[in-house]
Amino acid sequence: MLSVDLRKGVVKVLEIPQPQRPQGFALIRLVCGGICNTDLELQRGYYDFSGTPGHEFVGEVVEADSAEWVGKRVVGEINLACGVCPTCRAGMGRHCPARTVLGIVKHPGAFQEFFTLPEKNLHTVPDGVSIEHAVFAEPIAAACEILDQAPIPAGDTVAVLGDGKLGLLIAQVLLSHGCRVVHFGKHIEKLRISERSGASVELGGALPEAAYKWVVEATGSQSGLEAAIRMTWPRGTIIMKSTVHGPVSFDAAAVIVNEITLLGSRCGRFEPALELLKIGKIHLDAMISERMPLSRAPEAFMRAAGKNVLKVLLTA
Amino acid sequence: MLSVDLRKGVVKVLEIPQPQRPQGFALIRLVCGGICNTDLELQRGYYDFSGTPGHEFVGEVVEADSAEWVGKRVVGEINLACGVCPTCRAGMGRHCPARTVLGIVKHPGAFQEFFTLPEKNLHTVPDGVSIEHAVFAEPIAAACEILDQAPIPAGDTVAVLGDGKLGLLIAQVLLSHGCRVVHFGKHIEKLRISERSGASVELGGALPEAAYKWVVEATGSQSGLEAAIRMTWPRGTIIMKSTVHGPVSFDAAAVIVNEITLLGSRCGRFEPALELLKIGKIHLDAMISERMPLSRAPEAFMRAAGKNVLKVLLTA
Repeated sequence: MLSVDLRKGVVKVLEIPQPQRPQGFALIRLVCGGICNTDLELQRGYYDFSGTPGHEFVGEVVEADSAEWVGKRVVGEINLACGVCPTCRAGMGRHCPARTVLGIVKHPGAFQEFFTLPEKNLHTVPDGVSIEHAVFAEPIAAACEILDQAPIPAGDTVAVLGDGKLGLLIAQVLLSHGCRVVHFGKHIEKLRISERSGASVELGGALPEAAYKWVVEATGSQSGLEAAIRMTWPRGTIIMKSTVHGPVSFDAAAVIVNEITLLGSRCGRFEPALELLKIGKIHLDAMISERMPLSRAPEAFMRAAGKNVLKVLLTA
Repeated sequence: MLSVDLRKGVVKVLEIPQPQRPQGFALIRLVCGGICNTDLELQRGYYDFSGTPGHEFVGEVVEADSAEWVGKRVVGEINLACGVCPTCRAGMGRHCPARTVLGIVKHPGAFQEFFTLPEKNLHTVPDGVSIEHAVFAEPIAAACEILDQAPIPAGDTVAVLGDGKLGLLIAQVLLSHGCRVVHFGKHIEKLRISERSGASVELGGALPEAAYKWVVEATGSQSGLEAAIRMTWPRGTIIMKSTVHGPVSFDAAAVIVNEITLLGSRCGRFEPALELLKIGKIHLDAMISERMPLSRAPEAFMRAAGKNVLKVLLTA
């Protein structure tokens, strides 16, 4: 079978044997994969990754312990938790210290014709949701995590910094929740996507100071946090969504004097994401820049890293 | 009257005229002042301070609009809020952008024979609380602010990093709240104060990793936050109490991946602090290193900056 291989920054497509299905796992045939910024960061050396990347996917279950899964179109939780440690027993499987992560940490990813994932990680794609929309379930879940962590009331205004893929999904999730969104970015054609969904948009220029109670930092840059701190009200909250690597420097005195809350935020539950997809609240078509077959993965990765490119999909 | 003057790092005692009392203000005679680390930081150039420092005090009201204040022993809120801006109207006077701050920002401090403070900032020292204990009301309020911000249940374990004056008060406030406290520090004689109040103490050595749900960072050092992040559980909370100046560098990816909450925390309400003093829950005698008259303020400041010194009091 075809499998994408990422090693020392080089993306190749290899012919390898189909994986064995361990007990409790489903064997899944890839239908569609999405290239995420994390995949591009793996390519740059983050997590010392080598192997098969890919964690945004829609697949078809071909084998499973429970027969009812077979033939189902699925998406899946990417964290493989041990299920027995204190963290898992506390209901925080996504933080299990022994976890592996699909296509990121010690579990081969979805960018291959067949891959495995525990059955308990799977979610059926709701009827009426297209494959190309369902492939966004994982990053939408990451955007929804914000609302699981921060009690942002509908009607409140939220500033979103950064108009990359995640920033765009966050803006739409917050709009769906009933928030007013002011979306700050550097790419007018990307901001237009948020604007069409109802956000106010601000292109470049000076950022307002002490202006927002809620700020989502999704710039992906080292300087994003400093900007977010300057924009936040006393006692306001900054949700940190940019997994910047290496040390980040910030004005701790400003955070303390203004009693700002910084909230680290990563993966989220799939349930609210699938619900939003089901009711058609998230507009995704404009976010798909390109579709390429798995066999052209090296080119797709290059394309995904390009300026003004949003989601690049890999099709089986 | 005698007044402490701090300018370009030099502490002097000057003879100056007694201040005028504006309407709404009380004229207060200093009874006892406490030298805080912030005073020492003002001496080092923080906030470009020049003038009379001092914000921890017990005083006697000698003149006021309302006659009932006269003769009362008082402590006082140090933030002078405008009272009319949106921040003040939202009940966040301690964050008023137009605020001045007693002995810190544009309002002459308490280290002089007479000073002024708005009547609305005053709190009567409860009967049965000694002057030398009441002078700790302001830093105890800052410690109590933690419990106003973070919903730490009684019975939960909290790690406190740093055994300076504020760290010691924080440990005692948390113990009074019913928390278990593990106090990490570098000075055994300071940690003993916490130990006698019921904390477990850890002197120097390696800090445990991912071990606490609640961590209070009160080291006053640049490296404290990094240490706190390493010690915190996934989805745990770090309360930031060290007003370190200049940029602080930290591992933002760890905060995001582990979804840690960082909570900046500054001044607090006086009510819970006075209540704790009233019921005698905070043991303060061991925290008083020295008492000196106002006239010896330069020597007192030097002494307060010394190693192994805790609170230095200035007496009228």
